[in-house]
Amino acid sequence: MRKIEVIQNILEANESIAAQNQRLLDKHKVFAINIMSSPGAGKTSLILQTMAKLKNKLKIAVVEGDVASTLDAEKVKNEAVAVVQITTRNMSESCTLIANMLDHALRSLPLEDIDLLLIENVGNLICPSEFALGEHKRVVISSLPEGDDKPSKYPLIFADADAVVINKLDFLPYVDFDIAAFEKALKGLNPKVKIFHVSCKTGAGIESWCSWLLNEVETNIH
Amino acid sequence: MRKIEVIQNILEANESIAAQNQRLLDKHKVFAINIMSSPGAGKTSLILQTMAKLKNKLKIAVVEGDVASTLDAEKVKNEAVAVVQITTRNMSESCTLIANMLDHALRSLPLEDIDLLLIENVGNLICPSEFALGEHKRVVISSLPEGDDKPSKYPLIFADADAVVINKLDFLPYVDFDIAAFEKALKGLNPKVKIFHVSCKTGAGIESWCSWLLNEVETNIH
Repeated sequence: MRKIEVIQNILEANESIAAQNQRLLDKHKVFAINIMSSPGAGKTSLILQTMAKLKNKLKIAVVEGDVASTLDAEKVKNEAVAVVQITTRNMSESCTLIANMLDHALRSLPLEDIDLLLIENVGNLICPSEFALGEHKRVVISSLPEGDDKPSKYPLIFADADAVVINKLDFLPYVDFDIAAFEKALKGLNPKVKIFHVSCKTGAGIESWCSWLLNEVETNIH
Repeated sequence: MRKIEVIQNILEANESIAAQNQRLLDKHKVFAINIMSSPGAGKTSLILQTMAKLKNKLKIAVVEGDVASTLDAEKVKNEAVAVVQITTRNMSESCTLIANMLDHALRSLPLEDIDLLLIENVGNLICPSEFALGEHKRVVISSLPEGDDKPSKYPLIFADADAVVINKLDFLPYVDFDIAAFEKALKGLNPKVKIFHVSCKTGAGIESWCSWLLNEVETNIH
């Protein structure tokens, strides 16, 4: 009983801090998305493509979550209004960003100068599903080389997503990935989810993803 | 303080159960490996290739760890002496197998009929690094489409591995993956690690991986 109680307290405390974060973001008219995926599915690549496409229309900042290293923050720093790196290695929760980490990051960001905040979570399909950060939308990337069974194997993160980006579409000739089967399993968990077919390498599908995102930002903060 | 204390207790309890598991395995001359990777890197494929190659030389059983579904257990059941599925979705630790889950699995396995136990962990590069199960060797699979920066971004799991299998080598023409850079970063964390270059799809490199594994089994249990 003791263990369950402690875990519930952590999740309750997290929900409360996440709600505070969202109020702060709303006050400054910042729209935030939480981008989650397996390691190497293309979170940083999607952020780079999104910034390239939308930087003339929106002021974009990035929060980079990693267990270790600042490799991703280095990649995105030239295009963003501001970048904050969160390194979780020695924190009590190392397998996901949690709301109080975003709380600290928001204190370092010039919120009045930001329209869109892209939060790159730690590469993990399990832990991030339980911890809201204060984001307005949750986005999961699933890449073709991972296989089409991921919604069945990691259902919680897919069930709670507002959008799923199927990335590395350029790998279709080389992998055994049944897009219809993937989407059927995903829609079974989450009938309203938006689905995008993208290759961050070739740029295919980025237009459609960015149109949706831009519309979400404009509908929600202006 | 309270939180840290609880976490330490969990890890200490886990170490103690892991040591019990290893004594039980040793008593029955079962050699166990813990196979860890990102989702979709090829854990099940490596297990299938390993069973195909070694099933005439060793009696092999499998423990399948998944957040949800029995998809992987279905794939391996025809080739193994026995298969146990552990589904972690509703357990207190859902992002990794822990030692007491293996303890339960060992009670269902015919240990006297097993030489080699292949334990497929949950798809995750973070949580499994902290929880020993009682295994004799720890194996991490890293696949080319994930990118060559994984040792720098998830150092703990790579630092503790006995062997790293670089899988999906057939993707080399299609991805930007610098094998020398990957190995340099890996050896920086873990100078003694054994490295194998494999394609579970084509079978390339499986011979070398299985020779090493067979030798480990024979050296340690016979």
